Amino acid sequence: MDAAEFRRRGKEMVDYVADYLENIEQRPVYPDLEPGYLRSLIPNEAPAEPETYEEIMKDVERVIMPGITHWHSPYFYAYFPAASSYPAMLADMLCTAIGCIGFSWAASPACTELETVMMDWLGKMLQLPEHFIAGTHGHGGGVIQGTASEATLMSLLAARCKAVRRVQASNSELPEAEIFSKLVAYTSEQAHSSVERAALIGGVMMRKVPTDNSYAVGGDMLKKMVEEDKAAGLIPFYFCATLGTTPSCAFDHIAELGPLCNKENMWMHIDAAYAGSAFICPEFRPLLNGVEYADSFNFNPHKWLLVNFDCSAMWVKKRADIIGAFKFEPLYLKHENQESGLVTDYRHWQIPLGRRFRSLKLWFVFRMYGLSGLQAHIRKQVGLAKEFESLVRADKRFEICAEVIMGLVCFRLKGSNELNQDLLKRITNGREIHLVPCQLSSRFVLRFAICARTTESRHIQQAWHHITQLTFELLQEPNH
Amino acid sequence: MDAAEFRRRGKEMVDYVADYLENIEQRPVYPDLEPGYLRSLIPNEAPAEPETYEEIMKDVERVIMPGITHWHSPYFYAYFPAASSYPAMLADMLCTAIGCIGFSWAASPACTELETVMMDWLGKMLQLPEHFIAGTHGHGGGVIQGTASEATLMSLLAARCKAVRRVQASNSELPEAEIFSKLVAYTSEQAHSSVERAALIGGVMMRKVPTDNSYAVGGDMLKKMVEEDKAAGLIPFYFCATLGTTPSCAFDHIAELGPLCNKENMWMHIDAAYAGSAFICPEFRPLLNGVEYADSFNFNPHKWLLVNFDCSAMWVKKRADIIGAFKFEPLYLKHENQESGLVTDYRHWQIPLGRRFRSLKLWFVFRMYGLSGLQAHIRKQVGLAKEFESLVRADKRFEICAEVIMGLVCFRLKGSNELNQDLLKRITNGREIHLVPCQLSSRFVLRFAICARTTESRHIQQAWHHITQLTFELLQEPNH
Repeated sequence: MDAAEFRRRGKEMVDYVADYLENIEQRPVYPDLEPGYLRSLIPNEAPAEPETYEEIMKDVERVIMPGITHWHSPYFYAYFPAASSYPAMLADMLCTAIGCIGFSWAASPACTELETVMMDWLGKMLQLPEHFIAGTHGHGGGVIQGTASEATLMSLLAARCKAVRRVQASNSELPEAEIFSKLVAYTSEQAHSSVERAALIGGVMMRKVPTDNSYAVGGDMLKKMVEEDKAAGLIPFYFCATLGTTPSCAFDHIAELGPLCNKENMWMHIDAAYAGSAFICPEFRPLLNGVEYADSFNFNPHKWLLVNFDCSAMWVKKRADIIGAFKFEPLYLKHENQESGLVTDYRHWQIPLGRRFRSLKLWFVFRMYGLSGLQAHIRKQVGLAKEFESLVRADKRFEICAEVIMGLVCFRLKGSNELNQDLLKRITNGREIHLVPCQLSSRFVLRFAICARTTESRHIQQAWHHITQLTFELLQEPNH
Repeated sequence: MDAAEFRRRGKEMVDYVADYLENIEQRPVYPDLEPGYLRSLIPNEAPAEPETYEEIMKDVERVIMPGITHWHSPYFYAYFPAASSYPAMLADMLCTAIGCIGFSWAASPACTELETVMMDWLGKMLQLPEHFIAGTHGHGGGVIQGTASEATLMSLLAARCKAVRRVQASNSELPEAEIFSKLVAYTSEQAHSSVERAALIGGVMMRKVPTDNSYAVGGDMLKKMVEEDKAAGLIPFYFCATLGTTPSCAFDHIAELGPLCNKENMWMHIDAAYAGSAFICPEFRPLLNGVEYADSFNFNPHKWLLVNFDCSAMWVKKRADIIGAFKFEPLYLKHENQESGLVTDYRHWQIPLGRRFRSLKLWFVFRMYGLSGLQAHIRKQVGLAKEFESLVRADKRFEICAEVIMGLVCFRLKGSNELNQDLLKRITNGREIHLVPCQLSSRFVLRFAICARTTESRHIQQAWHHITQLTFELLQEPNH
């Protein structure tokens, strides 16, 4: 395919994409097929000779679309949102075309520098403390990671390295392996599975902190565990707080937890993967109070800030902590400006070496929406969640299972877990809307998350109508 | 921006991208600016209100393009290639629009299933042993990782887990921390820095194996180290072989190393990040002989197989080994088909939870080029490297520093390292072509890698003409 054909096919693809998104409501949100469906639809081997583009696009409808869970359908209420907007898509096209691999400043200065400045813009939108902003006299700054899982892992590795150095500074004889065996990390029992996984990767112990009746961790609970562990000769070194847990969007009390972590020399990382986007609205910003005690903070613009995946925003208080965890300098990656102290080589900030020019997506989205447009998006989706909450509350057969603060509603039928499992099964098989469950205090709960950018009040009303209809049928059955 | 505006802007962007790539030779390949150039060109904060699209596109030329190192310019010979092709770009547009986050089968069955089948297609193109192919009776399969660094880390973590379980099976009293402290991983002294980094992340020792005079590791060298370490009470558990090292594209002798690793119960991972693409050509496939002994194998189609970043192809002999290293199942990620044994949930195969629909890029590229087209691309680029090699060899002032097997030529001026550093400085400052150096046997060497898809013989001739002209000027200087 030459440039001339790309011009033609590219424009056709733009129309295909626009058609797909404009008509997405007409597709069933969740596919109806058996595992392994795809293999029999395409050949066993790559073709020896080129095929035509028409054949491929025909197969997109024949092979791919029937197997898609349509995350951007307004009938999709599962997991958390995956952000999507037209400006981000345009920026992504440009990013793919430039195709630089921005591991160092020299590998494409614009790629590194726009990222640093966009992370400053975003940090200011969140009113982060000055020490997280790169363009100040502070020692911190921001970086775009692929996912929150990677940000958590990076923070844990940086904390581990810092703890080992601190222990060895006062006891230089102690072998690293022995220190590792005494290190303890903490997180909420409601934290995302990737936090526990980070500890497993890093080869350190992780303890789950119990939560209060709003599923949040408070200072007292962590304090008690830390004191027990210290008394047992262990070394508490890391706490991952969650703002907006995955099951119920609960908020750990970081203003209590932060001072404790600082006093105990424990790294505090804040994972606000979903909820972080909302902190651009002044009315939600108080939930972030206490971030000034954190060593690192992360959230995913690719969830709720209209920036297509992947784009996970992470800030650290001290750049040196994260870079120091593993800096390698082979000659083929050295460049003339490296020792100037003025450049950032983002490869030291992350697990992968290579990286896309992801800050273009932030730049396009921030400028095409403006802060006011982004705030309007957040507020609209929170409003839709509140609307759904009211519908649930008005129906005596149902209960709300956790405070609705942002775009997630946790609800269930009053009654057994089996009853609610049955309801979810009917919803899934109905394929009109798509949700996933969670577990809260041993109860099986349905999660209704406002996801697609194009979700409107009518979709919420329709979804609730559908749920109550299925509920009616369910409760008619003799065994209920 | 609504769908109608996206249709218009998207088509303009397609033309912008085509124009950029068609005229890339007219831009200086390496930017001429000082660190920090970008910050002063744009505002300090995000705009409160939306800006127009025209303003943003004007700024792409004003702010971004002057700071780009143009990886797809035919005058770019640095690092290794970053793949790019029009079919991959079209697939990427579709991937962005579908915007599913394919962490589990249910999150979009097509995303998971196309990946499994594409990895089978690619595995067959490389003639991988049957146990790596998912659609067989074997226990293995393929997965798309973001980068080779992540594939290396995943393999090391799987190997670590397996080793700990094996040791504990015969000595259940031994604490994990003590086992960790005895584990030893190995890799070539020429291996990529990400291998050493993987060991650092995993908290295990890594020893560098010396290489022979072609910069490759042979069986004897590893055997000697393993025996020494076992005698010292350590537990060798992992070896990362390299096929196509970053400095000089050297090939470890895996047919010797594999049986040794198998005998010693050591996991053998093969990192063929750059060179792996060439194994689709029968004449290069013998370099992969010995892969049948490997536990995992990885290369980057995003380097040399015309698939834009990111797309790193990894196969494992036993799926259970890699999944077993860390499998977590929170309720919100469970789905009905999970226990059927028929589905793949790729989140267990990788560090991040989220993932793009990257297999679309493979599908489009394989079908639009056909195997023959991809082979032609590899052969053409190897031919260009051979052409450059002949030019160097014909000039008595220069020497070739490592055998030219694929698309990389390592060369230098006969004489001191300073002389060669001077030459590179002139090349970099000239900005007509872009190269990076490496170090081989303490010598400062220039790497000339054939990178852009559009590089032709005339570019090679022009590059050599430019290098010899700078050399002439350099050697005229009194101090040389």
